[in-house]
Amino acid sequence: MKQITIEEAGQILKEKDNFLVLMHKSPDGDAVGCGYGLCMALRSIGKRAEPLCGDEIPPLFGYVTGKLETAEADPQYIISVDLATTNLLSGKALEYQDRIDLCIDHHRQNSGFAKAGYVDPDSASCAEIVMKILEKADISITPDIADALFMGVATDTGCFKYSNVTPETHRAAAKLMEYGADSLEICRIFFDTKTRTRLALEKMIYETIRYYADNRIALVTITREMMEKSGATQGDMDGIAGIAKQIEGVAVGVTAREKDNGEYRISVRTNGDISAGNICGVFGGGGHFAAAGCSIYGSEEEIRDKIIGACLKEIGEKN
Amino acid sequence: MKQITIEEAGQILKEKDNFLVLMHKSPDGDAVGCGYGLCMALRSIGKRAEPLCGDEIPPLFGYVTGKLETAEADPQYIISVDLATTNLLSGKALEYQDRIDLCIDHHRQNSGFAKAGYVDPDSASCAEIVMKILEKADISITPDIADALFMGVATDTGCFKYSNVTPETHRAAAKLMEYGADSLEICRIFFDTKTRTRLALEKMIYETIRYYADNRIALVTITREMMEKSGATQGDMDGIAGIAKQIEGVAVGVTAREKDNGEYRISVRTNGDISAGNICGVFGGGGHFAAAGCSIYGSEEEIRDKIIGACLKEIGEKN
Repeated sequence: MKQITIEEAGQILKEKDNFLVLMHKSPDGDAVGCGYGLCMALRSIGKRAEPLCGDEIPPLFGYVTGKLETAEADPQYIISVDLATTNLLSGKALEYQDRIDLCIDHHRQNSGFAKAGYVDPDSASCAEIVMKILEKADISITPDIADALFMGVATDTGCFKYSNVTPETHRAAAKLMEYGADSLEICRIFFDTKTRTRLALEKMIYETIRYYADNRIALVTITREMMEKSGATQGDMDGIAGIAKQIEGVAVGVTAREKDNGEYRISVRTNGDISAGNICGVFGGGGHFAAAGCSIYGSEEEIRDKIIGACLKEIGEKN
Repeated sequence: MKQITIEEAGQILKEKDNFLVLMHKSPDGDAVGCGYGLCMALRSIGKRAEPLCGDEIPPLFGYVTGKLETAEADPQYIISVDLATTNLLSGKALEYQDRIDLCIDHHRQNSGFAKAGYVDPDSASCAEIVMKILEKADISITPDIADALFMGVATDTGCFKYSNVTPETHRAAAKLMEYGADSLEICRIFFDTKTRTRLALEKMIYETIRYYADNRIALVTITREMMEKSGATQGDMDGIAGIAKQIEGVAVGVTAREKDNGEYRISVRTNGDISAGNICGVFGGGGHFAAAGCSIYGSEEEIRDKIIGACLKEIGEKN
């Protein structure tokens, strides 16, 4: 992958046309914010641009997605945003995995799958990068674009509290507010709203937390039965992986969520110098230092043994 | 109260000596951050300075208060920080209520009790104001001072998500990070840590939430019995007043906490265009538009009738 400058990335947006912007599966606020924000910006300068995510985009992001009408694309230039590897594409987006022209990303482990790439691993969110590219290219950031990008910045930083936050993150947030982002509404949607079904699920979670290693590891298991009983849906799950790590004294918070066919989707969040990426790497997963994920297959007990074993090993190696 | 400029406020810090810095009762992160941060800064330029809060400062703020040794003061110049009215002084701080020389504050309703005042109601936190005064006065902001002030900014904005946040708030946060604030640790302490007793209390709260006005009002009651059963202490209560308002569809979140002698301490948080200040004003309380407090005396049912009545009236007037 040819590393290009931010100016070159901006130049591409102005020179090319008929864009498709790919987002990763299980899209988060940063992916959706970048995908939709970039398409809005491209359209604002007269280009054709369509966002594409192989998975359905949860209604939680409707505040942003509702502002862009989308259509089928027959694209000439393919951009990926917030995509570390093409393994994270799904569905219809997979068709384009071998022909990605430009990769805009902030993952240090970006696998270099595109023809050209602008990757800034010091950026807390990909949305900050998109903002800077638009600024360099003199493409106006409208309030709608600012909303999309603010959603990316805010959600990828847990509302400015994760370890990835830098002074630049706050300065990007300040600029996006000045560009017209409704930061209050976005923060309310993502950080200050709980559905009643979410409350019901949290109550069950609080009753079932398990502790290991002198309470340094906390494990939350969310079974399909708990989902059914609480009535919780995917839209209720945002930030749920943070609950275990929040508990005082806990250095490794693990959340195991039962999916279909014996799959448990594992999220690991860590405090201090323990690598969540290492823990999930044991099972073929990955992510960031303080937040990572993987899938493990088996019974609830098998999953527990495996993931807690990997956590204990990682903690042991750090002591 | 004579309104002075930020330059004049800075000049006072450099000219006077033997300062006492008063904080309000039930001190929050902004009061403590300003009180301790300002004293650290004054001492750094060779002045004598002591913070004074009439109430005991909760251990939650120990990350900041632990960095300053305090002593008895026989002060010559009295400053108040984050203090809207001298009614909010308590204990030993009350002795100084009639001789406050300089008031540094951000409350729009500041009652003008001091000889001179620098009040900026557009500032989300008083800590941002203290930062700017120090900058104007060319007093270096050390990492310890930055920690104290970042605590003020972050806690008074609910980690950058309340309606008081402006681009300037994010820029102040960016600067304080550059001055050396350990923003990650401060956010972890205040926004990403739950004690197990807090978890137990939240579980009880989730079981006892009452809804009114088509679920637009949610009421959380925290009885002394719940506190005892959960084992929760004052240190577990931070942000508890936000729970009711977080529930989807709720426009007015009310938290009634039983104190001694039939007093219930009421916190009201609102979304949209409903004034929490108006609701609490009915009972002699006050605060900001979206967050206010008051005390009501009576039985649990009487309290409920009174506060919900006031909420319904305020909602009714807005429809």
